[in-house]
Amino acid sequence: MEEFADSIVRKFQKELNAGTVSLVLLAIMARSDEPLYGYQIAKQLEGATDDGAPVKQGTLYPVLRSLESQGLLSSRVEPSVSGPPRKYYSITEVGRAVLVSWKEAWSRTRDFVEGRLEGGRD
Amino acid sequence: MEEFADSIVRKFQKELNAGTVSLVLLAIMARSDEPLYGYQIAKQLEGATDDGAPVKQGTLYPVLRSLESQGLLSSRVEPSVSGPPRKYYSITEVGRAVLVSWKEAWSRTRDFVEGRLEGGRD
Repeated sequence: MEEFADSIVRKFQKELNAGTVSLVLLAIMARSDEPLYGYQIAKQLEGATDDGAPVKQGTLYPVLRSLESQGLLSSRVEPSVSGPPRKYYSITEVGRAVLVSWKEAWSRTRDFVEGRLEGGRD
Repeated sequence: MEEFADSIVRKFQKELNAGTVSLVLLAIMARSDEPLYGYQIAKQLEGATDDGAPVKQGTLYPVLRSLESQGLLSSRVEPSVSGPPRKYYSITEVGRAVLVSWKEAWSRTRDFVEGRLEGGRD
């Protein structure tokens, strides 16, 4: 029964990550003054996950590709002196506009959830 | 371009809802002293959505069925004096245990997102 409950919690965490990882990645890209490649972006995510937060690095690359396919990020490949070529990502103008709406949607959803969870303590 | 951005925001909202609606429904059921049927649960959700929050009633029933199939809710059908039989839902013991873990996962994810969104204001 405990393992069963664990799998339900993992599924829930995965559902929460579906939107939030995209939001966080887009916010990181919006703050960067220069294009970033995967490892640099992962480092910025890791900085936030010392407390055992939910994003694993394997989650990162599919989300970057998805953001690019939606036109929110652009990329260019550049040779690297120390290894294989690197793919550098930048946020697009559409990406900046969508980020504003995503932040609003996040705030609404967060307040909605918090309000409902707190309801029991009234 | 605006319609395109709108569809990206709707997709994002749908992703956010995937986990959060389950969480909120389970929390509502945990607080109820008695079994509730769909319309009663919808009313409790609506109370929270006056501000244009993201849950539509059509979202409710698939989530109730999903929570039941995971063993977090149980149901029984009872005749109604005023119409067709009603399906009453109750939270199970497993549901109460899972809700504790879901709340923890939600808090971690919320803090992670808030921390990353605030990063730019440092």
